[in-house]
Amino acid sequence: MTRRGVIAGAALLGVGAGLDRLLGNRGVPDESDEVAQTVVPFYGEHQAGIATSQPEYLVFATFDVTSRASEELRALLQEWTAAAAALTQGNRYRPSHEGLDGSVGDPGETIGTGPASLTITVGFGPSLFGSAARPRFGFHLRRLDALSPLPGFVGESLETDRSDGGLCVQACATDPQVAFHAIHVFTRIAAGTAVLRWSQQGFGRTSNTTRDQQTPRNLMGFKDGTNNVRAEDEDEMDEHVWVQPGDGPAWMEGGTYMVVRRIQMLLDVWDATSLEGQERAVGREKVSGAPLGQEDEFDHVDLEAKENRELVIPADAHIRLASPDLNGGRRILRRGFSYTEPSLAGSGQLDAGLFFISFQRDPQRQFVPIQRRLAANDALSRHLLHTGSGVFACPPGVQPGGFIGEGLFA
Amino acid sequence: MTRRGVIAGAALLGVGAGLDRLLGNRGVPDESDEVAQTVVPFYGEHQAGIATSQPEYLVFATFDVTSRASEELRALLQEWTAAAAALTQGNRYRPSHEGLDGSVGDPGETIGTGPASLTITVGFGPSLFGSAARPRFGFHLRRLDALSPLPGFVGESLETDRSDGGLCVQACATDPQVAFHAIHVFTRIAAGTAVLRWSQQGFGRTSNTTRDQQTPRNLMGFKDGTNNVRAEDEDEMDEHVWVQPGDGPAWMEGGTYMVVRRIQMLLDVWDATSLEGQERAVGREKVSGAPLGQEDEFDHVDLEAKENRELVIPADAHIRLASPDLNGGRRILRRGFSYTEPSLAGSGQLDAGLFFISFQRDPQRQFVPIQRRLAANDALSRHLLHTGSGVFACPPGVQPGGFIGEGLFA
Repeated sequence: MTRRGVIAGAALLGVGAGLDRLLGNRGVPDESDEVAQTVVPFYGEHQAGIATSQPEYLVFATFDVTSRASEELRALLQEWTAAAAALTQGNRYRPSHEGLDGSVGDPGETIGTGPASLTITVGFGPSLFGSAARPRFGFHLRRLDALSPLPGFVGESLETDRSDGGLCVQACATDPQVAFHAIHVFTRIAAGTAVLRWSQQGFGRTSNTTRDQQTPRNLMGFKDGTNNVRAEDEDEMDEHVWVQPGDGPAWMEGGTYMVVRRIQMLLDVWDATSLEGQERAVGREKVSGAPLGQEDEFDHVDLEAKENRELVIPADAHIRLASPDLNGGRRILRRGFSYTEPSLAGSGQLDAGLFFISFQRDPQRQFVPIQRRLAANDALSRHLLHTGSGVFACPPGVQPGGFIGEGLFA
Repeated sequence: MTRRGVIAGAALLGVGAGLDRLLGNRGVPDESDEVAQTVVPFYGEHQAGIATSQPEYLVFATFDVTSRASEELRALLQEWTAAAAALTQGNRYRPSHEGLDGSVGDPGETIGTGPASLTITVGFGPSLFGSAARPRFGFHLRRLDALSPLPGFVGESLETDRSDGGLCVQACATDPQVAFHAIHVFTRIAAGTAVLRWSQQGFGRTSNTTRDQQTPRNLMGFKDGTNNVRAEDEDEMDEHVWVQPGDGPAWMEGGTYMVVRRIQMLLDVWDATSLEGQERAVGREKVSGAPLGQEDEFDHVDLEAKENRELVIPADAHIRLASPDLNGGRRILRRGFSYTEPSLAGSGQLDAGLFFISFQRDPQRQFVPIQRRLAANDALSRHLLHTGSGVFACPPGVQPGGFIGEGLFA
């Protein structure tokens, strides 16, 4: 059934991206709004939302699986897959059978918004697999070394309420209402099998995933993501991001591991730091984004350069410590967002920062050693506080008829 | 000094909307992006952000004034005015004198974003005026009857950490990073005189303030704001929104009173309600937005219509109880936003809803009786929980050389 076919057959609620186009011209936006009408393919070799062009808005959520029956988990993943296939293509969610959804079906807040480049990416947390003492769903046979819980890092202050989860869902879109709607629908579908653990919204990219995107600024005022892995570099993606044959169980081939970190920026101290101090902490000029000692954002980062016998890029500069040169060539694909949240009375501070998301072939060999080095030595880290954390295995993409994570049940 | 003049004279940090246009073409977005480059005038009869076209993003904050010296409060308002005049026109914040800002000046996260229709609206809360027993700043002589704290309402569950404040700042823009930046700068300027009490972000309009805007949907999936007061209706604005001569002290003439309510939507129960049940609670059809019994969103709301001896629009429908016909002709200008925030572990619920903002000539005669009726009888209210609240006096607009609220000091 084509999308046009769905629209033509639509009646009242429950189906069709363009339903309100049938009902008058008051839909927002109209078909000529290219950004709102852009669709990212759902089916493919990899899940969308990893190597696809990064939009400006995120709603992320994790869930604790309360069911003990693997058939229920399987049914949940099948229904999530059907919902993702519909929503990302600009169609509404329709429950696949009565009883799963007793009422309205799609809650409706995206009637007329357009698909807005929505992507939905699902991952599995360590707790889904249980422990050796308490295995779950029979998955202990399929436990993944790469999915070990992250170790502690210097200076972090993790909150249980913002960390971990057995399942995660990342919804990204050019319209925050579209991203919210996806998590809204997924939360409803989960009822009875999994319960929302925590969620996080984000706005404003803090990295690029494709070369056609310009480098955005984070809430410290610096360009962020200049030296990111780019989706067009397929060799780099295979080397650093996509799980390869032989890395572990076959069902994760073509997948990747996601690390999320909620990183609060201690803006009051940062803002009271001189421009020179900020630039030395980052290792780049603030306005241009050029590495210190260079002129252009994309100029080569020369870690050896000295002036008056002093390193031009200081020994504790962020771009030095995060550099692949100092990390055994290890790189990660960053895909983060800024956030701000209500500031609680008494603190007097804005609660704002970075919701860091990265994708890599093996967090234990990529994120963990890089972050260990940054946490211990990085001048920028003194202005940051990690308050939330999670690691998730994102299985490969889905083909029509399949479902996300089906390899787990094979 | 014109905006072009500022740009031409710019050197390194501190000035100029288009600074990075001087530094290469990597600024986001370029001059051809009309939405990003749109400027809303700052000076005028009324403060902007009330009758001006409503953009999609909000960051709102309130502050407690810690200083006891009226000169310090005056200096803060003067510096906020200078900052607002700069930021809204796409220029950076430059501290007016050394020492007020020891470091970088503008934190810089909007370099390259464009002004993005930024408006900044400032209001004064009841606590700024002190009490009869503990007057503040000599303002007790200027106390405003219309600024009495709001009474309690049935079913609310207000949190101190999300309510009240001596000063409020509403920043609205088409780019959330631009709105955040304004509150970021204002928080820095306030240091030593006032401290951030709470903040709230919003996305997605839940109302229209001008006739050229289409009616958006709230997170319950319904069109919201169909029968709003519109800025083009100057007689209505004078009757319901702008403070008129004789209403109270002369320094508030041309100003208005703002009521904010953080309204959590109890989405789990709402989503489990049938479509018919939802439509009867609202009094409108979900997809079209038409009043029940009518065909088009903007059709007349006929509160008397019956079918089979039953009211077509139920006795407890939201649009009936909120109707001016049942409220002595009282109307308010709504200018709300949706919100979603991290869901805390254990609740299993999305924390999402409406950050309601309204403007009116006298909250005691407009918002209070309307809300009292809704809280007690409205079918929709059973799906809502008010968790935050505030009332603020927004003085009139500023002319060049003046500052926001200068009439308070006259």
